[in-house]
Amino acid sequence: MYKTPKHILKHETIIPVSFHDTDSMGVVWHGNYIKFIEIAREALFDNINFGYDVMQKENLIFPITECNCKYRNFVSVLDKKVKVVAMLSEYEGKICIHYEVYSEATNKLCAYGYTHQVIVKSDTKELLYENPECFKKALEAANKVNQ
Amino acid sequence: MYKTPKHILKHETIIPVSFHDTDSMGVVWHGNYIKFIEIAREALFDNINFGYDVMQKENLIFPITECNCKYRNFVSVLDKKVKVVAMLSEYEGKICIHYEVYSEATNKLCAYGYTHQVIVKSDTKELLYENPECFKKALEAANKVNQ
Amino acid sequence: MYKTPKHILKHETIIPVSFHDTDSMGVVWHGNYIKFIEIAREALFDNINFGYDVMQKENLIFPITECNCKYRNFVSVLDKKVKVVAMLSEYEGKICIHYEVYSEATNKLCAYGYTHQVIVKSDTKELLYENPECFKKALEAANKVNQ
Amino acid sequence: MYKTPKHILKHETIIPVSFHDTDSMGVVWHGNYIKFIEIAREALFDNINFGYDVMQKENLIFPITECNCKYRNFVSVLDKKVKVVAMLSEYEGKICIHYEVYSEATNKLCAYGYTHQVIVKSDTKELLYENPECFKKALEAANKVNQ
Repeated sequence: MYKTPKHILKHETIIPVSFHDTDSMGVVWHGNYIKFIEIAREALFDNINFGYDVMQKENLIFPITECNCKYRNFVSVLDKKVKVVAMLSEYEGKICIHYEVYSEATNKLCAYGYTHQVIVKSDTKELLYENPECFKKALEAANKVNQ
Repeated sequence: MYKTPKHILKHETIIPVSFHDTDSMGVVWHGNYIKFIEIAREALFDNINFGYDVMQKENLIFPITECNCKYRNFVSVLDKKVKVVAMLSEYEGKICIHYEVYSEATNKLCAYGYTHQVIVKSDTKELLYENPECFKKALEAANKVNQ
Repeated sequence: MYKTPKHILKHETIIPVSFHDTDSMGVVWHGNYIKFIEIAREALFDNINFGYDVMQKENLIFPITECNCKYRNFVSVLDKKVKVVAMLSEYEGKICIHYEVYSEATNKLCAYGYTHQVIVKSDTKELLYENPECFKKALEAANKVNQ
Repeated sequence: MYKTPKHILKHETIIPVSFHDTDSMGVVWHGNYIKFIEIAREALFDNINFGYDVMQKENLIFPITECNCKYRNFVSVLDKKVKVVAMLSEYEGKICIHYEVYSEATNKLCAYGYTHQVIVKSDTKELLYENPECFKKALEAANKVNQ
């Protein structure tokens, strides 16, 4: 049975389901969940003040090293919206974020998965094995708010 | 010079700019504006109570017969969001909707374009040369609200 | 260390890398590998005479229940093409296909992953726990050719 | 009535129709033709030895300033492949390429359209009002071959 994984931070994002997200089966094409979870991940990062503007200023990129998605229920344009919960569960050098995708219409869990990311310096492409200070501070600040 | 076209209805939609929308030039890939304007069109239709759920109940589909987009300024993830204005300008049998895409960060007009659609019965694929009653009523109701 | 998984059938597909596949990092966006492996999976199915035309005739669909991709090396438009190897490794009720994505320019392994699929009757949505006869025959015929 | 536009160069590309190209209507989503014509444009440029590798070496980019597509017939995964004809029709500063998209299965014309591009220096973002020498030569060489 699926259980929501442990996490230190979470953020919910509502995303409209558009016609271009669907496929010939009349439901969201499985690969487009990777887009949904990216939008949710970006909202999570923005929410802790570590969006692309900050990453760029800090000379960092966060490339994806793995993504995974399991599918349970279909979503169609009649669902109108999905709610994606992004949950940060690992954050020491390697970042692991888990996701749950719900139909907003039915509140059914439709898919869940995760992404792994590493932290790399933009200019030198150096891989960082420890979180840079700026990212640590953003996580700490976010955790204080959440307590 | 570009001038906003005449229209009888309009609706604004805010859409987050995501990493997957961008291309190697560091800006939103030109073809992805077709997705942005589809999301705005769907919001316009939903707003006059003629979303996919209603279309399906009424046995109607609205296939696109032409799309056009002109590009003026780039949008990147640093813009964070675009505002898309969808404007219904023709609605007798053939539907013409114009769009303007603005960076929400700078309020610059970044792209504009239009789509043409026809109205077709889902089951028989019969092309309708006149608006069906249900669609006329939705337009009238929306116009009253707007006056 | 990564090792090519055991499989009973494989098929290679060459796919051009297009500008719209890339993102702001100047490389193929990680989610677009899900498109690459779908094209390779479709070519594998076509190659054993079990393409969408046959599936439709046989009243079957093969929904994806899980997808996974690990990233090792970037691919850009300068690579021009990727070679995707699709390998059928499980095929009793649940279908598991593994994939390897290589840059055609450098022959480097850039990504690898898998998809799981189930077999469902189109009309009744009944889940099949055993391979239908038509699919068994297609697999047997393909295996004879490969021996 | 549609007539193939005058052009000085043309190139045909075969593209597989994949499940992820389709939408809930069971046919290729209209916006995905923008991807098909991009693949065809890239093949045209490659064919005259002016692919992304050459553009990069020559410090040039060719941003799209307008795209247009008209739809006539649907394409589904059962068509298996589309043939896209890319035709260079203007090439003095502004580049105009026209496209015709055919179902390979039926040879029906399914869509046609065009793109406009300008030529810009990568580093300075300077807009070029005349073709750079390297591009002129590529066009001349291609024309000789075609005569």
